[in-house]
Amino acid sequence: MKRPFNFSAGPAALPLTVLEKAQAEFLNVAETGLSVLEISHRSKAFEHIITQAEDRLRELLNIPANYQVLFLQGGASLQFSMLPLNFFAKKVAYVNSGSWASKAFKEAQIQAASRPVDVIWSGKENNYRAMPEQAFWASFDWQTAGYDYVHLTSNETIQGVALPSDFAHPGTPVLCDMSSDILSRPVNVESYDVIYAGAQKNMGPAGVTLVIVKDELLEKIPQGLPTLLDYRTHAEKGSMYNTPPVFAIYMVNLVAEWLLENGGLTAMHQKNKQQATALYDVIDSYADFYRGHADPAFRSLMNVTFTLPTPELEAQFIQEAAAQQLMSLKGHRSVGGIRASIYNACPDEAIAALCAFMKSFYQQHH
Amino acid sequence: MKRPFNFSAGPAALPLTVLEKAQAEFLNVAETGLSVLEISHRSKAFEHIITQAEDRLRELLNIPANYQVLFLQGGASLQFSMLPLNFFAKKVAYVNSGSWASKAFKEAQIQAASRPVDVIWSGKENNYRAMPEQAFWASFDWQTAGYDYVHLTSNETIQGVALPSDFAHPGTPVLCDMSSDILSRPVNVESYDVIYAGAQKNMGPAGVTLVIVKDELLEKIPQGLPTLLDYRTHAEKGSMYNTPPVFAIYMVNLVAEWLLENGGLTAMHQKNKQQATALYDVIDSYADFYRGHADPAFRSLMNVTFTLPTPELEAQFIQEAAAQQLMSLKGHRSVGGIRASIYNACPDEAIAALCAFMKSFYQQHH
Repeated sequence: MKRPFNFSAGPAALPLTVLEKAQAEFLNVAETGLSVLEISHRSKAFEHIITQAEDRLRELLNIPANYQVLFLQGGASLQFSMLPLNFFAKKVAYVNSGSWASKAFKEAQIQAASRPVDVIWSGKENNYRAMPEQAFWASFDWQTAGYDYVHLTSNETIQGVALPSDFAHPGTPVLCDMSSDILSRPVNVESYDVIYAGAQKNMGPAGVTLVIVKDELLEKIPQGLPTLLDYRTHAEKGSMYNTPPVFAIYMVNLVAEWLLENGGLTAMHQKNKQQATALYDVIDSYADFYRGHADPAFRSLMNVTFTLPTPELEAQFIQEAAAQQLMSLKGHRSVGGIRASIYNACPDEAIAALCAFMKSFYQQHH
Repeated sequence: MKRPFNFSAGPAALPLTVLEKAQAEFLNVAETGLSVLEISHRSKAFEHIITQAEDRLRELLNIPANYQVLFLQGGASLQFSMLPLNFFAKKVAYVNSGSWASKAFKEAQIQAASRPVDVIWSGKENNYRAMPEQAFWASFDWQTAGYDYVHLTSNETIQGVALPSDFAHPGTPVLCDMSSDILSRPVNVESYDVIYAGAQKNMGPAGVTLVIVKDELLEKIPQGLPTLLDYRTHAEKGSMYNTPPVFAIYMVNLVAEWLLENGGLTAMHQKNKQQATALYDVIDSYADFYRGHADPAFRSLMNVTFTLPTPELEAQFIQEAAAQQLMSLKGHRSVGGIRASIYNACPDEAIAALCAFMKSFYQQHH
């Protein structure tokens, strides 16, 4: 069977060579004679895997020594609750850039009692087509605001908008959900105090959540939290307080290896820019038919979102694309339209096939 | 490479035929042409998998329609915190039967504020060799006690003791951690209000937690919990509020299929009794050398724990066993000694080999 082109938003396409390696050693990991699914998380074999995964992520992202690298469970959604539980003392700030930012904000509100949870920027009125600009950050008075933290979402998977750049935020910790663009580009980790991401887009399968947290921040955590919801528990035990999701971490390790073998995040960013540019070029060339959702300055390199003139044409587009093995192009049920998710593992052939299909579909229906 | 005999306490041995099936379709699940790691949790293929997993578990355990079957993350350890968050109103009771029960109790204490968390039975003084007897339950005055719930651990993985039978508990919900004996025997689900279990012993790989909860109990949950820690969230969304651990659920489905094909839980219980009896018989036959930890009436069928006359002999036992491909026999670091974990997937050949080794080791060293 020919491998379809998979534009799923997550769980998403994984590199074929990584999948083939996992398959080949599925019954015998690290010469144990056992499946990776059957080995104790306290075994030497798994200790090697989790250490290697951490080391490779540190190398890829250039993570400083004063940041912990944790492998947790529950996805970004559990992080939405853990962040305020651990770091919300008096007053926190959220950037409402789209569906995921909005969910993070709601979880802080749930824990707010009478403490302020401020939305310092919102794209809602504009239907989430943009992100805050440098001018916004430059004029922000961090000192006076006195927030415990500011929460960001670097890439909105559903709307297809992305933060264009880092920014200065003197004295205020920044916590950032990078679920849908982690490992897609180099990141200056020191610009953030917490970076977190579900694995199931760029990093591996569903079932493990990466949390990169600055040591300094751990000191602010209050006593008395449920043990598993306290970041210190996981930091102190090397993500092994309880049984970690062994297989998902094993896969993250293989994906990290693949990234290192293929030029790391600089090369990956280059590839991602080229692929996204190719798709946005088609959209812009046929602007009377394909309408990109995001303002061009905030276009995501991971999730290319656009609409067609009518819902009927969109349905036909999705159906005809699927017939050509271009799969999972339907936009998220909350916003409709078309979404092509083109994470690290997306091959150039998939982009070429989708561009060709879009041109042909345009010729027939415009 | 010959497959070793794997006595790991968890993650633990899985059925070879299940592993082979997962390997064979690793790059092409359900004729999608994609790996199960890459398909959307909203895809038809995964909807079929999660529905089938639930249906098979309902069939195996004869779960009544008024119980929800949920697939969560975070292991039993997160359940230790979620249970009191959801169900602790005024006063709760814990049976302290071993290491795991003790952890569950501590999480309730963390949330107690000034409310009582009563230990109604403890095996601690006796070094966790027993569990509560029928006489204890029969004399318990449930009405007067007025607990929101009683928390149990059906099998203590570390000490190797198990609850011998169900008991009446009129008017008081019973929440039971069955992590290490779920699916090993038929269970009268209606005797419990919540049954929960990490998958990584009898059910699949690490990374998914089964929660079986009575509808009636969900109505008692207070408002204002973090969304992901509220059981209603998962019940209302069919375990798909956020991305579930797709691969782990896929494996649980395959293990459930294997159980159904092999006579279900009655046949499995029979096999487990025979295997455990064979090991305990060796222990009892050489009682001057091998000392079983558990009182015979409370012996676990899953985790056979025993000591040798000296720590040196234990170390030698573990080393010589490993040389014969009998792996992971070291007792938990908190209690020492030897532990043979013999879950559903343990083949008879592993038991025969271990019994033979124990006899031979005895002959050489007694």
